[in-house]
Amino acid sequence: MLKKLNLFIMEEESNKEDIFRKLQELGGNIVAQIESGVFPKISIPSRNVNNIVYDEKLRQYILGPQKVIRSAGNIRLIKPLTQLIWTAWFSLRLLRDGKSFTLRELYYQSKNFPILDFEEQKESDEIVTDLEALLGVPREEFGLTPKENSKIFGDIDIEYKVPVKFKGKIENLMTSPDGKAIGMSIATAKFLKCRAKMVIAIEKDGIFRRFIEEEAYEKFKAILIDTAGQAPRFARLLIRRLNQELKLPVYILTDADPWGVHIAGVIISGSANAAHIKGLVTPEAKWIGLWATDIKKYKLPTLPMKERDLKRLEELMQDRRYHSDFWKKQLREFKELGRKAELESLSKHSLSFIVDEYIPDKLEEIS
Amino acid sequence: MLKKLNLFIMEEESNKEDIFRKLQELGGNIVAQIESGVFPKISIPSRNVNNIVYDEKLRQYILGPQKVIRSAGNIRLIKPLTQLIWTAWFSLRLLRDGKSFTLRELYYQSKNFPILDFEEQKESDEIVTDLEALLGVPREEFGLTPKENSKIFGDIDIEYKVPVKFKGKIENLMTSPDGKAIGMSIATAKFLKCRAKMVIAIEKDGIFRRFIEEEAYEKFKAILIDTAGQAPRFARLLIRRLNQELKLPVYILTDADPWGVHIAGVIISGSANAAHIKGLVTPEAKWIGLWATDIKKYKLPTLPMKERDLKRLEELMQDRRYHSDFWKKQLREFKELGRKAELESLSKHSLSFIVDEYIPDKLEEIS
Repeated sequence: MLKKLNLFIMEEESNKEDIFRKLQELGGNIVAQIESGVFPKISIPSRNVNNIVYDEKLRQYILGPQKVIRSAGNIRLIKPLTQLIWTAWFSLRLLRDGKSFTLRELYYQSKNFPILDFEEQKESDEIVTDLEALLGVPREEFGLTPKENSKIFGDIDIEYKVPVKFKGKIENLMTSPDGKAIGMSIATAKFLKCRAKMVIAIEKDGIFRRFIEEEAYEKFKAILIDTAGQAPRFARLLIRRLNQELKLPVYILTDADPWGVHIAGVIISGSANAAHIKGLVTPEAKWIGLWATDIKKYKLPTLPMKERDLKRLEELMQDRRYHSDFWKKQLREFKELGRKAELESLSKHSLSFIVDEYIPDKLEEIS
Repeated sequence: MLKKLNLFIMEEESNKEDIFRKLQELGGNIVAQIESGVFPKISIPSRNVNNIVYDEKLRQYILGPQKVIRSAGNIRLIKPLTQLIWTAWFSLRLLRDGKSFTLRELYYQSKNFPILDFEEQKESDEIVTDLEALLGVPREEFGLTPKENSKIFGDIDIEYKVPVKFKGKIENLMTSPDGKAIGMSIATAKFLKCRAKMVIAIEKDGIFRRFIEEEAYEKFKAILIDTAGQAPRFARLLIRRLNQELKLPVYILTDADPWGVHIAGVIISGSANAAHIKGLVTPEAKWIGLWATDIKKYKLPTLPMKERDLKRLEELMQDRRYHSDFWKKQLREFKELGRKAELESLSKHSLSFIVDEYIPDKLEEIS
């Protein structure tokens, strides 16, 4: 019966229906085990660090083949199994109603079910991560909203799916010069007409604003995204969708320091602690600057690297994600310089230098 | 001639023109002194801690009557005078072009003028604060954009003034269910038709989203603002303008802890380190929850206060801003309980409890 349901799914709704179906199957599976007289159990991909492997083909960290079992037949495991099933039930209900919730709200809701016995939010967060691993999708796809402070500005029309009141409403994302907040609604919206030719993801609020004031969105036909530091998950989901569904090239702009490198790295190939999720990375995205090699080239004012910068740099040099010639060269250059530079340092030349000179240079250089 | 200029100022543009004129007067004043053969000097309100006084009538901290002198006749003071005049010149130019800039960009731009000799950004930030004190307006009004991550959602039409490309464009702020980012453009826009009857400022992203999903904006005819923690300056400016220009009552919703109290306190009566600025506070705004007394009333799950919470609580108990009976009672209750609660704890009852039960209760209680 669950299989049959699948036939009626409309193309554009497939993702939500898919998760809906997976959650229902999870429940159906438990019920079937109980009805056939056995202790119900579930097998979940292990998130143990020795089960995290780098997949060269997917170009991201993924979980290996190891599994863990949650079984009602083991007194020690009955609690996490119950917690997992309740969390799945709660998600299913919210998803059906087109509502979302935060990790914090989930934790407090659980207080109504003393049997769940989550002592701290850390415990319920863990169970949510188990559910992500089990379903293979990020939690935002089953209704859990991460904290968001990213923004978007660009010439694309979208059609909202959630919340209920906004279903079917169409909006252009270039009407608000301060940017529109990226949350569940924008990240999951259907893309309609898009007049942009590329995506530029920017680490910093101030530079995002600079790009709008200097009309970079027109000059480069670009959708601008302010990741506000490390890109939150909805921003990563949206960047991936713009790249995969609309075939837009994605360019990432960060400070020239190890933290900037890693902001780009996480957009491109994900983070180790999200190895249990596929669907958030954009392997085709390119880091276009500030490169370590830009520091000399553009005669930028620099700052000395501090101990924590140097420590982070060493870590990145060991990281599989940064083993290509390009990354190696950049990381070596940082090490030799012992200095870092910020995007704002380009404004030494003029406020509009970054848009008038730097980006055109870079787009030519990488093409 | 400068005075005459004033006659041609259109009503709605008065603020920008006002600052423009003040900056021009500052420059004119310097030039006049030089031409009359004296070393130019400027007197600035002192920001020394013993010149910060609480104004009972304005209900905010302000600077007292003490002044400091910046004079070109003193070898020690010629540098800060030069820095101040350059900063004013830079602001004037940007303001004229309808552009904005960040503190970081200002610092790097100064690198083109070695005579300014700012060693660290801290120094140029200080000069900006001097300019704020001198003009008596927050820096965002002379083009400097603070970092922003607040959002708005509500039924009001606005007309943008900046950036240039958007001047005169009209937008409704209830079209994006993830919220619109509050930056310089929204904070300085002209208010047109407003169908809302109140403003609800919320400390947290997740609860802001909850209010949108539960359609609280319709239920209470409310403009919702996500302050994302301590309200950034554009959010405070916007809240004040909505209150003063449109006479909308403002209600503030935070966690029940000393930090939540102070988020409300800063919106209502400003912060001590912004004592040199008027125009960012909303004395009429009301903190409607979570109160310390709500913890027992709504049987909320709590967390123990940690040492830093208790230390902060003691500080607030000493603070002039919290000396009314209402605040005293709340702070005492916190101290007796030794516990705190989060907005999300209301979701123990149900996800929509905060909108369906709690807010209506509160609005009745305070009216």
